[in-house]
Amino acid sequence: MKDLPLSKVYQLLEPGPVVLVTTAHKGRANIMAMSWHMMVEFEPPLIACIVSNANYSHAALRATKECVIAIPALELAPKVVGIGNCSGQDVDKFKRFSLTPMPAERVAPPLVAECFANLECRVVDTHLVNKFNLFVLEVLKAWSDPAQKNPKTIHHHGYGKFVVDGEVIKLKSEKP
Amino acid sequence: MKDLPLSKVYQLLEPGPVVLVTTAHKGRANIMAMSWHMMVEFEPPLIACIVSNANYSHAALRATKECVIAIPALELAPKVVGIGNCSGQDVDKFKRFSLTPMPAERVAPPLVAECFANLECRVVDTHLVNKFNLFVLEVLKAWSDPAQKNPKTIHHHGYGKFVVDGEVIKLKSEKP
Repeated sequence: MKDLPLSKVYQLLEPGPVVLVTTAHKGRANIMAMSWHMMVEFEPPLIACIVSNANYSHAALRATKECVIAIPALELAPKVVGIGNCSGQDVDKFKRFSLTPMPAERVAPPLVAECFANLECRVVDTHLVNKFNLFVLEVLKAWSDPAQKNPKTIHHHGYGKFVVDGEVIKLKSEKP
Repeated sequence: MKDLPLSKVYQLLEPGPVVLVTTAHKGRANIMAMSWHMMVEFEPPLIACIVSNANYSHAALRATKECVIAIPALELAPKVVGIGNCSGQDVDKFKRFSLTPMPAERVAPPLVAECFANLECRVVDTHLVNKFNLFVLEVLKAWSDPAQKNPKTIHHHGYGKFVVDGEVIKLKSEKP
């Protein structure tokens, strides 16, 4: 994993990829799939996300205020769906889906070695957690895997339908 | 434009497409480009979005508490970039970009006739507006254009680089 400048984090999340979220609570790491997230600020990067209180990860995120957002490429799609269809309450998802936890630098939850980018995050605002399950996170440290060239991300349209990144177009724009 | 069930709105926004946002304030409609949005709840659909106070639309949204989120397909990409690179303070963007405002049913801001989906929204939470420019919207009414079959959306990666929807994959999943 290679250092990624925090100023580039928004380019990973703004396009709306499905991501994985790891937490660590009571001595155990867990992992969930998430599509409801958005950028809030460029730098330091702030991210808002919805982690439902129906998700096992909700209590961990609430208690520890730390998580890692790991971004999977297309090849991991079957595992992403599997992760989204079972609960950390019942299974060790790292083991079941043969994913490799790697120590993070700034937070307790692990990175996911198979993901092409990993963002170490701390919860910085909880005003809307009770009302909307909405957490605001700050990215403290970001990693990218230089071995994964041009990863294609997947975008969820409901019930296992995903649209994969296609053609890249470049238009003249001054906006970040 | 055809009625779209509110229960299907999340399938439009969850994948992270670039959208247009219309507002109407002091007798004038305006339009901006936006990529920082996420679903918050399925139904009634709630959406969070960031509308910076550097955007001319911020004051309109704050004052009127209404907007329309219009979703453009690939063909509109050059107009989307144009819209993102000028301000409603200086120009009538509907006129400059030859876009057609259509009356909405539940809100004052117009639909954009050229977009394949239009969501009429009301601001329902402003707790994080001062701190993060974060508005929570409820979709009151949703429209889709049946004449636009399989529209491809665009996903922003910064400075005019967009990734277009590619291949569709379907995996077995019970999750909406």
